[in-house]
Amino acid sequence: MIRGLYIGRFQPMHKGHLDVLRYILGQTDELIIAIGSAQESHTPRNPFTAGERFEMIRSVIREEGFDLSSIYIVPVEDVKRNSIWVSHVLSLVPHFDVVYANEPLATYLFEEAGFEVRKTLLFSRSSYSSTHVRESIVGGSDWQDLVPPSIFDYIRKKGGVERMVRINSTDKC
Amino acid sequence: MIRGLYIGRFQPMHKGHLDVLRYILGQTDELIIAIGSAQESHTPRNPFTAGERFEMIRSVIREEGFDLSSIYIVPVEDVKRNSIWVSHVLSLVPHFDVVYANEPLATYLFEEAGFEVRKTLLFSRSSYSSTHVRESIVGGSDWQDLVPPSIFDYIRKKGGVERMVRINSTDKC
Amino acid sequence: MIRGLYIGRFQPMHKGHLDVLRYILGQTDELIIAIGSAQESHTPRNPFTAGERFEMIRSVIREEGFDLSSIYIVPVEDVKRNSIWVSHVLSLVPHFDVVYANEPLATYLFEEAGFEVRKTLLFSRSSYSSTHVRESIVGGSDWQDLVPPSIFDYIRKKGGVERMVRINSTDKC
Amino acid sequence: MIRGLYIGRFQPMHKGHLDVLRYILGQTDELIIAIGSAQESHTPRNPFTAGERFEMIRSVIREEGFDLSSIYIVPVEDVKRNSIWVSHVLSLVPHFDVVYANEPLATYLFEEAGFEVRKTLLFSRSSYSSTHVRESIVGGSDWQDLVPPSIFDYIRKKGGVERMVRINSTDKC
Amino acid sequence: MIRGLYIGRFQPMHKGHLDVLRYILGQTDELIIAIGSAQESHTPRNPFTAGERFEMIRSVIREEGFDLSSIYIVPVEDVKRNSIWVSHVLSLVPHFDVVYANEPLATYLFEEAGFEVRKTLLFSRSSYSSTHVRESIVGGSDWQDLVPPSIFDYIRKKGGVERMVRINSTDKC
Amino acid sequence: MIRGLYIGRFQPMHKGHLDVLRYILGQTDELIIAIGSAQESHTPRNPFTAGERFEMIRSVIREEGFDLSSIYIVPVEDVKRNSIWVSHVLSLVPHFDVVYANEPLATYLFEEAGFEVRKTLLFSRSSYSSTHVRESIVGGSDWQDLVPPSIFDYIRKKGGVERMVRINSTDKC
Repeated sequence: MIRGLYIGRFQPMHKGHLDVLRYILGQTDELIIAIGSAQESHTPRNPFTAGERFEMIRSVIREEGFDLSSIYIVPVEDVKRNSIWVSHVLSLVPHFDVVYANEPLATYLFEEAGFEVRKTLLFSRSSYSSTHVRESIVGGSDWQDLVPPSIFDYIRKKGGVERMVRINSTDKC
Repeated sequence: MIRGLYIGRFQPMHKGHLDVLRYILGQTDELIIAIGSAQESHTPRNPFTAGERFEMIRSVIREEGFDLSSIYIVPVEDVKRNSIWVSHVLSLVPHFDVVYANEPLATYLFEEAGFEVRKTLLFSRSSYSSTHVRESIVGGSDWQDLVPPSIFDYIRKKGGVERMVRINSTDKC
Repeated sequence: MIRGLYIGRFQPMHKGHLDVLRYILGQTDELIIAIGSAQESHTPRNPFTAGERFEMIRSVIREEGFDLSSIYIVPVEDVKRNSIWVSHVLSLVPHFDVVYANEPLATYLFEEAGFEVRKTLLFSRSSYSSTHVRESIVGGSDWQDLVPPSIFDYIRKKGGVERMVRINSTDKC
Repeated sequence: MIRGLYIGRFQPMHKGHLDVLRYILGQTDELIIAIGSAQESHTPRNPFTAGERFEMIRSVIREEGFDLSSIYIVPVEDVKRNSIWVSHVLSLVPHFDVVYANEPLATYLFEEAGFEVRKTLLFSRSSYSSTHVRESIVGGSDWQDLVPPSIFDYIRKKGGVERMVRINSTDKC
Repeated sequence: MIRGLYIGRFQPMHKGHLDVLRYILGQTDELIIAIGSAQESHTPRNPFTAGERFEMIRSVIREEGFDLSSIYIVPVEDVKRNSIWVSHVLSLVPHFDVVYANEPLATYLFEEAGFEVRKTLLFSRSSYSSTHVRESIVGGSDWQDLVPPSIFDYIRKKGGVERMVRINSTDKC
Repeated sequence: MIRGLYIGRFQPMHKGHLDVLRYILGQTDELIIAIGSAQESHTPRNPFTAGERFEMIRSVIREEGFDLSSIYIVPVEDVKRNSIWVSHVLSLVPHFDVVYANEPLATYLFEEAGFEVRKTLLFSRSSYSSTHVRESIVGGSDWQDLVPPSIFDYIRKKGGVERMVRINSTDKC
């Protein structure tokens, strides 16, 4: 049995994440989805709380009919100290065999600690990126096609658009 | 739909926890199990990491045949500041309607914040308590009947007994 | 002009504190009252938040007719590192000339940093101590005479007695 | 009786702050002035300690003849976690009824927590802003007219100009 | 070449530590002495700062004529999270091959991380323990024979006896 | 006897640092080298851990034949609070008489605390700066002449070049 670890911030989860998820589920028996920067929320780059992101990811998994009994979702707070970050993650999530990541630092740190890391960036980054999704939402562009249907519904129902617009106008004086 | 929140440290999960879980699942549609003091491990009172406790709780849920698609498991680190603890928990877990707790402080803090809190201590505390389970393991008493079978297997397979015995002999000089 | 610094936790403020306050005001032109362990609340030893303690101290000052224009009240969180504690306090409060304290550690640290420290324990500690006040409140003894009238009213009006009783029954399992 | 909360960093307090203060005092019976980012000092954006800012604000209140018995000043450290920030502020300051703020994030967070927030930006931001004041002091422009007289005196007497000039030349190599 | 790691709090360094040091130096080419709980000072259990302990250890090494070019001294702050403690230590000290420890928790954590740990408790613990030394100093017993001469001189010259006596009388009210 | 304190991040140590070191050793009897931002590693600006930097500095000292018995090396973590930074440093390092620094903030803070600070920037900053060294390593320019031989060897042997190249490509999405 192979269990994978997939780390992201999911601010918010979009179709690119979903493609990666589908890809990893084809390679593993069980998957841990770690919600990174769990302590962050209400900022332009991190608009949603870990609890909200947790709920959004679950809704997509249900929508897609993935098997929840083989998927673990775990919020992980930052430690802001790269030398202990891998140990920190290890202490919070169940045991895993392989890491799925693209971000160079995470990749380097897990490899330095002896883990196998597989690339996930198989898909067009420009069309599906969290930054692009956030900018589209805040800028008033059409964003419905960028995210899974349940994410679109969740964000609109919970007032997510208004939140993102308002906190983006924050100036720091 | 009613979603409940059940907070515990699960060091380790025992049959008392299982009874409570069964009871809550009879009252709610969905349940969030929050693993408290997630940052603690390798101490006499908190021998297991959050990741290990996560895995143990999942194994019991599977063993019991509970529906994983309606159960959320979320590790929650302590904040050591009672006045912000409820906000901290709220930011990390999905939305919920009712809290299940017995611990007087947690009960008070959630009630002060306006939540409905329901007592869970319907079952004999003396026979099933984490303290009793830990003391039995460390002291060499029979502990197999105190925990669900999958917990017994997990702790033995992972060297949990040796860990608990060794860290209990820690003196602080 | 002489400005004094008086540090306490005021959990809650009682008649012993009031005697000390009166004594210091007779020796100084201005006084800073630092509310220590400001981050603590809802524990048996620290039942009230810094905001509640702030309000209680202000109410006593008004009740006594002391001049608020010469009294500064400043909440100070713990740093849990004795070697930097004095610098921490200095950064949070206005300039002062003399420290009023009885606690041996605070006295030592301020003296080591070159400050003049004057003893405040001129009054019977046994009859007026925060510990005694808290035990009387929780234990159901008569406590009205131990605190200034405005403190008695504040605690009762804000549900302080119920809070203290409930959090005192907290067991940690 | 209505008590307001007014949050700012006051780096340093200037005539714009004073206008806002006068405006709020006309609408409320009591006012809490929260000194935000209390832990910061000696940086270009936050040159003064919380204690120094406290003293400066008090000096203006005295200079203006405002009633100190209805004004509370409370230093508030950052928590760097937006989801718990409101709880953090609530634990440190006395009870209040209405918040005065302009900053979009603070406004959003207090409104999300159910508080009434009133705008304070009634006055020309360009002429009176802390950034403008700091740049004028560091750049050697005339800044006497930008701040109340007691602030001008305090900063000059305490070596504030030299401090601001020197820490502004900090490069990070 | 073999480099060892020896962790202790050295509050203060005594003849038992010196015996261990001599023993380890006979087994290794280079030695890292890690000063644990580096952030602690001015408490009954941790009277001296990391800087003071650093200076004391250096003075003994010089006094004994050990080769400073093969000994590294490194203060290490606590992280209060056992699961990341080994990573934390690894990030702060030079590379090492073997750990010297007696404390069960440290031994367990380093072994769990795959390190070789060798016992150091070859010598009578009752006669030479930091607790015994501290109690002797505070209690006024003869303590000169318990520590190396340079430690005795350092503590007396720096007012260490007075500090220890005074902070031991701290009551927490 | 005069003991100096020299603070830097040494990311990595280069010939400019060595020139300064030589200069200070000519003015003092003993020298403390404090490794600043000790908690940082694996970032473009702070590629190496404190332990690695410690080892590199020691190797240069040996290579140059400086006397290790009069040089103390101490990792110092950031506190991110300027008002307590000097106290923090004082608690971690042995006693010293004079500070060697160029950075304006460090210079200001030590002077404000009453210390003598001597400038070290006697040498061409453009040719020898850590930023220039890091950019040369990452950019593939020749960097051998910018650092002492033992630093060149250490970085190459430990895979430092690959680490720096890989973490520099980190984007934050």
